[in-house]
Amino acid sequence: MSNAPDTVVRAFVEDHRDAFLHDLAEWLRIPSVSADPGRADDVRRSARWLADKLAATGFPTVEVWETPGAPAVFAEWPSGDPQAPTVLVYGHHDVQPAAREDGWHTDPFEPVVTDGRMYARGAADDKGQVFFHTLGIRAHLAATGRTAPAVNLKLLIEGEEESGSPNFPGLVRARAERLACDAVIVSDTGMWSEDTPTVCTGMRGLTDCQIDLYGPDQDIHSGSFGGAVPNPALEAARLAAALHDADRRVAIPGFYDGVVELTDEERELLAELPFDEARWLRTAHSHATLGEAGHTTLERVWARPTAEVNGISGGYQGPGGKTIVPSRAQLKLSFRLVAGQDADAVQKAVTAWVADRLPAGVRHEITFWGATRPCLTPLDHPALQSVVRAMGRAFGQRVRFTREGGSGPAADLQDVLGVPVLFLGISVPSDGWHAPNEKVELDLLMKGVETAAYLWDDLARHWRPAAAPDA
Amino acid sequence: MSNAPDTVVRAFVEDHRDAFLHDLAEWLRIPSVSADPGRADDVRRSARWLADKLAATGFPTVEVWETPGAPAVFAEWPSGDPQAPTVLVYGHHDVQPAAREDGWHTDPFEPVVTDGRMYARGAADDKGQVFFHTLGIRAHLAATGRTAPAVNLKLLIEGEEESGSPNFPGLVRARAERLACDAVIVSDTGMWSEDTPTVCTGMRGLTDCQIDLYGPDQDIHSGSFGGAVPNPALEAARLAAALHDADRRVAIPGFYDGVVELTDEERELLAELPFDEARWLRTAHSHATLGEAGHTTLERVWARPTAEVNGISGGYQGPGGKTIVPSRAQLKLSFRLVAGQDADAVQKAVTAWVADRLPAGVRHEITFWGATRPCLTPLDHPALQSVVRAMGRAFGQRVRFTREGGSGPAADLQDVLGVPVLFLGISVPSDGWHAPNEKVELDLLMKGVETAAYLWDDLARHWRPAAAPDA
Repeated sequence: MSNAPDTVVRAFVEDHRDAFLHDLAEWLRIPSVSADPGRADDVRRSARWLADKLAATGFPTVEVWETPGAPAVFAEWPSGDPQAPTVLVYGHHDVQPAAREDGWHTDPFEPVVTDGRMYARGAADDKGQVFFHTLGIRAHLAATGRTAPAVNLKLLIEGEEESGSPNFPGLVRARAERLACDAVIVSDTGMWSEDTPTVCTGMRGLTDCQIDLYGPDQDIHSGSFGGAVPNPALEAARLAAALHDADRRVAIPGFYDGVVELTDEERELLAELPFDEARWLRTAHSHATLGEAGHTTLERVWARPTAEVNGISGGYQGPGGKTIVPSRAQLKLSFRLVAGQDADAVQKAVTAWVADRLPAGVRHEITFWGATRPCLTPLDHPALQSVVRAMGRAFGQRVRFTREGGSGPAADLQDVLGVPVLFLGISVPSDGWHAPNEKVELDLLMKGVETAAYLWDDLARHWRPAAAPDA
Repeated sequence: MSNAPDTVVRAFVEDHRDAFLHDLAEWLRIPSVSADPGRADDVRRSARWLADKLAATGFPTVEVWETPGAPAVFAEWPSGDPQAPTVLVYGHHDVQPAAREDGWHTDPFEPVVTDGRMYARGAADDKGQVFFHTLGIRAHLAATGRTAPAVNLKLLIEGEEESGSPNFPGLVRARAERLACDAVIVSDTGMWSEDTPTVCTGMRGLTDCQIDLYGPDQDIHSGSFGGAVPNPALEAARLAAALHDADRRVAIPGFYDGVVELTDEERELLAELPFDEARWLRTAHSHATLGEAGHTTLERVWARPTAEVNGISGGYQGPGGKTIVPSRAQLKLSFRLVAGQDADAVQKAVTAWVADRLPAGVRHEITFWGATRPCLTPLDHPALQSVVRAMGRAFGQRVRFTREGGSGPAADLQDVLGVPVLFLGISVPSDGWHAPNEKVELDLLMKGVETAAYLWDDLARHWRPAAAPDA
């Protein structure tokens, strides 16, 4: 790769930086808080604002897609090359609630630039990281002399991500034909730290359930009957305790079936990240690490499936004591899943395991709330390699790999569209997502612009998914 | 034992039956509900009524003892024989709440006699069983020609038993000298069934506690951190699950230290009771039996110590799911104790066991609410033998043995006065203690009168505790 295009990109980005930040600030002034019904008009205004800006950027097709809730913005810019890959960029234009009295030093909806940072609700999550694509594509065109991007570019910027994306799966299913693509690039994540650019290669999946246990028909006297009848609170505890073996591996038969294990290379790469346990524990508000034997903390949260007790209850919970055998108990469990695990199979395994373990005299009901599939892109996937190269050029540094322990709407795109999901983010842990004084580092934001500028050309050069549908 | 006194007793009891039932009904009309502050005057009136009746019965000393709550009644009738044993009868004159709309077929405070039963709140628990002593002692005097009972007789009839006896331990400690005796006879229990007269030989003790577990400083995201930090709800469950081994024996080291095991004779005697599991399960509102391996249901509830989960809570308990690692959890445990166990030692064992089992990163606090000691009278104790003989004469049947799984204020008498506690009761499970339509079987009630009539003479003849302080 010659250096010439990089020089052009950098000069273009530098020239347009002030106007870009001015426009971003204008967008950030729109308090598009999707969780607040009183802000519905602002969320709508935010969608309109973005649609206008994407049209001005040059996207020939820009549409505001209505949902039963807040609208999403869709934009499309064909490449003109019949062999070019089609890429869908995902992000969101709604933001978390924010109020001065929550601890903000300045008005959360009046952006302030200080010490190379822009402070505002949505600066990093996710308006800044959506908006860098607008300047990125213009820099891409300027550097390559093209009039259309090297890939078929689509954008889907939803308006309810901060409210749990209730209408997103439906929208994606309804619009699947328009959204058809070869890969999704999620532009709503972060990287390891200011000094360590990284690309996320996958997210964990999730399925969660509630187990209701019924013992005696009413609370009974622990003196008259205790020790001779089953106690559903004890049985709930025994179930929870049996979730893990002595090595804190999940002990449900079949749970690990199909799990894609970390390769030696991936383990080495993760181990190279500058992990500071004390600092990580502060982020976790926790006082010690504990998890599956034989794995590091990062492996445990990013690449290993888990069983977690989200809630447990049964019997007396007021002040003092009450000597009863309780009538009922309840357990809320969640299971994080990794690539290769099948959520339906896990639900079946959990259901069978619960039924097997309860003694006579304890009736139970199990209810699953849903399932989000895990996603994982192999390190050698050509599209992932392009993201890494583009980011490496922008940062002038080796790019490392992370994963994400949580689960998100990206998995809906993966499932419905049947394509790999990639992650491109320049946010850092100190950006304060969902917290007061959210900010974005302007240097990193401009590296995001630069990465987006390099990415489309690199993808078009190195990936021909249409030519190799079996790849 | 000649039959002559029995004939005299029976004739005396028969002659005075109507007047006795008339008086009892008068007492039952006083709604001495200790739990209802609006009935405080009625509880006081009930104490006064009983005091007057005991004085009329012949007790030379009758006193109403005030407490910070409801008053107790104390009465004393010395034998005149310096070698006679001193016996303290315990009962209570307060009753459970009752209202017609709870399902009573008649006014709970207007006694009705039908089919040989008297229906009224307190008929069995405990006014009927206190009151049979008044006619019993008169029959004893009539049959023996004495002017004072063969034993030194004391009565302590408290007024707050149905409210948890909050002032009873303090009263007993403050009046210990007046209450000094060789044995306590608790007249507030029942027997196996109408057809199977029994004597209770002991009650289980109790200690209970709350364990608070603290993990992360706040609820944290189960995707970002789950599987890598300790979860206090899981640890609470693991503690509860570790209370028992695979045989459902309590697994806390030292828990069974000192336990007085059932003798072969006791096990055989308990096995002779006509136990109907289906019927017992209905009483327990339960759908199966489950408990310590190697023991019958009756052994489990009467003679074996237990660890029970009274309550467990932690994390999310609302509708649906919430994927968190909770910050806190709480466990409420109770331990029933049997003779030979030391409550302080059990508390220490539990405390050490909890501290040993929790992983780093989970802080805990343990709070014990209190301790009630177990009590047990050996089958060959001369006073117990007297109770069995007196009851056998009244019922004309072999008397068997039971125990009581619960724990009660009798233990306070045992502990403070340092004497054995015996139990004499003629109530049966169908009497409906604490339930609507409480009743007493009049035939059984008159057997109680008769038992009390035989008991004092038998005790004086066969037991000389003062002469053998080391017995």
